[in-house]
Amino acid sequence: MIPNEALPALGQGRTERVMVAIRRLIASHALAPGDKLPSIRMLAREKTVSPSTVVEAYDRLAAEGLIRPRPGSGFYVAASIVPARGADAHAPADRAVDPFWVSRQSLDAGREMLRPGCGWLPPDWMPLAAIRRAMRAAAKTDDATLVEYGSTRGSLALRRLLARHFASEGIEAGAEHVLLTSSGTQAIDLICRHLLRPGDTVLVDDPCYFNFRALLQAHAVRIVGVPYAPLGPDMSAFEEALATHRPRLYLTNSALHNPTGASLSPRNAHRILAAATAHDLTIIEDEIFADFEPERSVRLAALDALNRVIRIGSFSKTLSASIRCGYIAARPDLTEALVDLQLATGFGGPSPLAAELVFRTLSDGSYYRHLGSLRGRLTRRRREVVAELAKLDVHPWTLPRGGFYLWCRLPGAPDASEVARRALRDGIVLAPGNVFSVNEAARDFMRFNVAQMNVDVTRLLQRTLG
Amino acid sequence: MIPNEALPALGQGRTERVMVAIRRLIASHALAPGDKLPSIRMLAREKTVSPSTVVEAYDRLAAEGLIRPRPGSGFYVAASIVPARGADAHAPADRAVDPFWVSRQSLDAGREMLRPGCGWLPPDWMPLAAIRRAMRAAAKTDDATLVEYGSTRGSLALRRLLARHFASEGIEAGAEHVLLTSSGTQAIDLICRHLLRPGDTVLVDDPCYFNFRALLQAHAVRIVGVPYAPLGPDMSAFEEALATHRPRLYLTNSALHNPTGASLSPRNAHRILAAATAHDLTIIEDEIFADFEPERSVRLAALDALNRVIRIGSFSKTLSASIRCGYIAARPDLTEALVDLQLATGFGGPSPLAAELVFRTLSDGSYYRHLGSLRGRLTRRRREVVAELAKLDVHPWTLPRGGFYLWCRLPGAPDASEVARRALRDGIVLAPGNVFSVNEAARDFMRFNVAQMNVDVTRLLQRTLG
Repeated sequence: MIPNEALPALGQGRTERVMVAIRRLIASHALAPGDKLPSIRMLAREKTVSPSTVVEAYDRLAAEGLIRPRPGSGFYVAASIVPARGADAHAPADRAVDPFWVSRQSLDAGREMLRPGCGWLPPDWMPLAAIRRAMRAAAKTDDATLVEYGSTRGSLALRRLLARHFASEGIEAGAEHVLLTSSGTQAIDLICRHLLRPGDTVLVDDPCYFNFRALLQAHAVRIVGVPYAPLGPDMSAFEEALATHRPRLYLTNSALHNPTGASLSPRNAHRILAAATAHDLTIIEDEIFADFEPERSVRLAALDALNRVIRIGSFSKTLSASIRCGYIAARPDLTEALVDLQLATGFGGPSPLAAELVFRTLSDGSYYRHLGSLRGRLTRRRREVVAELAKLDVHPWTLPRGGFYLWCRLPGAPDASEVARRALRDGIVLAPGNVFSVNEAARDFMRFNVAQMNVDVTRLLQRTLG
Repeated sequence: MIPNEALPALGQGRTERVMVAIRRLIASHALAPGDKLPSIRMLAREKTVSPSTVVEAYDRLAAEGLIRPRPGSGFYVAASIVPARGADAHAPADRAVDPFWVSRQSLDAGREMLRPGCGWLPPDWMPLAAIRRAMRAAAKTDDATLVEYGSTRGSLALRRLLARHFASEGIEAGAEHVLLTSSGTQAIDLICRHLLRPGDTVLVDDPCYFNFRALLQAHAVRIVGVPYAPLGPDMSAFEEALATHRPRLYLTNSALHNPTGASLSPRNAHRILAAATAHDLTIIEDEIFADFEPERSVRLAALDALNRVIRIGSFSKTLSASIRCGYIAARPDLTEALVDLQLATGFGGPSPLAAELVFRTLSDGSYYRHLGSLRGRLTRRRREVVAELAKLDVHPWTLPRGGFYLWCRLPGAPDASEVARRALRDGIVLAPGNVFSVNEAARDFMRFNVAQMNVDVTRLLQRTLG
C-alpha cells in the first residue's frame, strides 16, 4: 500500500509523480530492500492513474536500478541502494603543477570557475544552432548510422569532404589517405604507438602544447625540446638536435602554434623538411587551430605531399569538443597499418553518429559564415585583451594572426606556477608557462585564452602582480 | 556567366539547383581551378533567385571545399580538385585469417553482405525509437553538453546510474569508482597500458574474443590460453597456469562468454578469486554481454568487491555501437591513475553528448522493456537456429542461456578458416574457430550470430559441408 500523502503535488507528469512517490517510500525506508512493490493494477487504482502510467514509472525506476522486476512475480526494491554522492572530487588543488594540472583543473572546474587557462572557447562562441540542426536531422538518419559500429576508417562522406579540403591546399589525398579517430589527441597517440618504441627520442617545440608532453611520457620516450621562435623552431638548434639526438619523430603545430600563436615561415618549413629528409625524421603536423587562420600559412604536409609528414586534426576548437572526432591523413600504407591498431585498441574509430554530426555541421552553409565571424570576433577580442594586459605591463611574446591564445611574459619575473596555484583558490584556472616547457624555460610566462578573460581575471592579475 | 541550360530541372530546392549548376560547370571545366565565380548579385539576377540563395549555395560549396572565398574579392574555384573516388577498398580477401580478419570483413562489409560472423545485432533489433527520441531531446540540451569537452571522468549522471545498477548487484561503488571511456575495448586498452609492460604474461580463455588477442599483441605481452569449459575455465589448468607463468592479468567474460555463450559457475568464480589472491593476479571482467542474461549469473567483481577485479563494459550490444561509450569500474586509486592516462592519450573520455544520449536512452522507460523483449526474441531465435543447424549435423558446444552466439563444431573436421574464406566470395562473413583460439585448438569450430543467420547462410553451409 502506498499512502496517498506520498503522492507529490500536481504540476509534474503523472509518471513522474508515481516515481517520486516510490522514491520517497524507499528513501524513508517505508519500502525496504527486497520488499515487493504494489501490483500495477492496485497502484493504478489507488492513484487514479492508468496502469500504463504505473508500468512506465516502474520501468523507469528499474532503469535507474532502484527496483528490479522478477519475471512473472512483479517488481521489488533493489537489494542494496548506494546513496547518491555529492559532485566529484576535483584534482586536488595541491597537486603538482605538471602537464596534467591545467587540463584537469580546466576540465573538472565547476561552472562558477573562470578558465582563462583553458584551451577552448566558451559555448556561446560555438555554432550551436548548426549543431542543434544537425542533431535534429541526424535523429532521422538511417538505422545503421544510429546503431552500428561503422566502417574501420570511419564515415566515407566525412573523409571525402576532408580530402576535398586538402585538395584545395594542393594536397592530392583521397579518402583512402584519411582515417577518422575519436579525437586529435587519440590520432597522435595511435601514430606514436605505431612508430615509437620506449627509449626513442621525439622532438617537440619549447614551448609546446602541454599534453604533447603528457602523451609522450605515456610512451616512455625521450623528449627533446627545441626553442621556438616567432617564425618556427630555432633552425640551428633544430638541425643540431637532429644530428645529436637522431629523433624518430617531430610533433608540432605549424599554424597558430600552441601556446604562442606563432606560425611557421615558408623558409623554415623548407629547412625543416630538408633536415627531416636528411635524417629520416617523421613529422606529425597538428592542424588543431588551422581553421582560425585568416589566411592560410605554409604547411609541411603540403610541401611534402604527405610523404614523411602526417597531418592530424579535429573539430574540437571551431565546431564541438563534445562531438568527439579527429582524423589522420597519411600515406595509404601507414593508414592501413593504423586501421589494425585502432581496431585492436578501440574496436573501430569514431562514432558513426559523431562523424555524421560533424559532416552535417560542416556541410551546413552557416558553418563557413560562423568561421568568418568567429575569426573577426577573435581579432577584436585579442586586441582588447592585449590592451587590457598592457596596463599591467603584461605583453605578448608575439602578436598571433589568429586564434585565442596570447603567450605573455609576466613582469617582475614571478613563478607563474605559484601565481596559478594562488589563482585557483580564487576560482580562476590559469595556464603557467613551465607546463608547456620541456626545458622549464618559461617560468615567468603565462598562456591566456582571450575568449575566457574578463575583468575578474585582470583584477586578480593586478593584485597578484602589483 | 553561367548559361541557363546549366540550371537543372525544377523539383530541387533553389539553393541545391544553384549548387548543382556550379558543380556541373566545374566538372565540365567550363570553370577552371582559380577562376572567379560570378558575383552574387549578377548570378541572382541571371537565375531569378534571391541573393541570399546564391550566398547560401556559395557557402555550402565552400564548406565542401569546391570553391574558396577571398575576403573582399568574391569566390574562386578551388585550386585543385580531387575526383570523388569509388567506395573504399575493403580488407583484401586473401589476407591471412587472423584475429583482425573477422572484424575487418564484418565492419567493412557492404550492405549486401550477410554477416553471421559479426558480433552485433541487425539495426532493427536495436532500440531505434528510444535513440531517436533521445537525440531529439538532446538537440535541446544545454550548450556546454553540446560543445565542451566535459569532465575528466565523464558524465556524472551516467556514472551515478551505473553505480546504482552495480549497487543492485551488491557492489558498493560510487560514481567516483567509475570512469567513462569511448568504448569497452578502449577501457581494456587503457587498463592494459597502465598495468602491463612488454614481456608480461596475460591469461585469456581458449577460446576467447578474437580482439582480446589483437589488443594484447599490441601490448607486446605473452598470451597464455586456458581451455574454457562450459562452466568457466578448466580450473586445474587455470591454477597450473598461474603457478607456471605468473601472469599479471586475466581477461575474461564471466557472463555469456564470447564466443561460447557459456557462463561462469559460482564454484569456479570462488576458485578463480582464491587463486588470483594467492598469486596477486588482477582480473578484467568484461560485462559486454551482461544485459542479455535472463537471470544474473555470478560475477567476480561482486565477490571481490572491485578490489583486484576491474569491471568494464559498454552499451554497444543492446543500445548502440554507433554512440560510442564504455566504462571502467575499479578501485578509486586505479580510476584516478587511469584519468591521467586517458587525458594524456585521448584528452578526456567519451563525448559528453554520447554519454547524454546513453543516459537518456537508459533512463527511458521503454529501454527496460526493449531488453525484455530482446531477450525473448533471442531465445526464440537461438532455438530456431539450433534446429536449422542440427539438420546439417552442426551442434552447439553448449546451449547458451542468453545472447546471440552459438559456438559450433563443424562435422567432418573441415578447416573453418578455409570455409570462411570461401564463404566470403559468396558474400558471407563467417567467424572461424581459430581466430578465437590462442592454442589454435578450434580449427573446426565456427561462431554463429543467430540474429544474422538466414536461409542463404544455411544453404551455403549445406553446400560447403555436404
